[in-house]
Amino acid sequence: MTSSTFSLRRAEPGDAEVILRFIRELASYEREPDAVETSAETLRSQLASPEPPFECWLAWRGAEPLGFALFFQNYSTWRGRTGIYLEDLYVTPEARGHGIGKALLRKVAALAVERSAGRLEWAVLDWNQPAIDFYRSLGAVPMHDWTVFRLTADALERCARAHD
Amino acid sequence: MTSSTFSLRRAEPGDAEVILRFIRELASYEREPDAVETSAETLRSQLASPEPPFECWLAWRGAEPLGFALFFQNYSTWRGRTGIYLEDLYVTPEARGHGIGKALLRKVAALAVERSAGRLEWAVLDWNQPAIDFYRSLGAVPMHDWTVFRLTADALERCARAHD
Repeated sequence: MTSSTFSLRRAEPGDAEVILRFIRELASYEREPDAVETSAETLRSQLASPEPPFECWLAWRGAEPLGFALFFQNYSTWRGRTGIYLEDLYVTPEARGHGIGKALLRKVAALAVERSAGRLEWAVLDWNQPAIDFYRSLGAVPMHDWTVFRLTADALERCARAHD
Repeated sequence: MTSSTFSLRRAEPGDAEVILRFIRELASYEREPDAVETSAETLRSQLASPEPPFECWLAWRGAEPLGFALFFQNYSTWRGRTGIYLEDLYVTPEARGHGIGKALLRKVAALAVERSAGRLEWAVLDWNQPAIDFYRSLGAVPMHDWTVFRLTADALERCARAHD
């Protein structure tokens, strides 16, 4: 398979089942197979909404889906500009090694440039060395001195309710 | 000063100068005083646009601004839901120690719950122990096994342009 045998296109509501399958496969790869709570119906209705909360591109060989990139807009106060945050990038095991992940990432980079976003960010699991090597080869820089904190579920509710 | 002596309100285009001042002060605190490229005019026009790329809340004591929280919507594929990403949280040195940062964070948490976002995230510099202690005391959890990668400027352009 060469790069000419696959094509990329923007996801539509009818792609919800494929996207859900890829989200699940990526979660398994990330050792969190039970973490996926979403459904095809949720993805379908979000993709069909006037302002979808994310944008998704799929790679195909004919009618066979090979992988996806899912992202949304973020914002930098220092730059005063929007950027793109890449939430998921995934290629099926059988399709790996043919530049599909790179083509998907390049597509998102091109959209970032086209939209004057000027910055593309994403998070990588620290044990995922093949991914880290790949991202570094493209010139991406790790933000090593920052840690993301998360407040969710009961702790978020408590924080929201509490008063001094 | 007690918590009853300050109030929070959503920022408007007329607050652009105050927000810019706080963005600059926070950048100095984060040891990147020269990183701020944005302007009051940029912030003003973004706040005045039909779909601002961020939302901002300010803390005030009378006509004196004390701090700000600036955030935008993100999205989790595993949850199939939007969340809130807190880009900046800052309280002026003189106003610290009176629960203003906590009140701002609680406001954002309350908005997250109100909007069914269900998750609030932000990044902390690893040397900023007072902030880390504060966030942990609220029940926030560090995502230690993830590192954010960033592609920007020339590397982003190259990635966007390149073809196999």
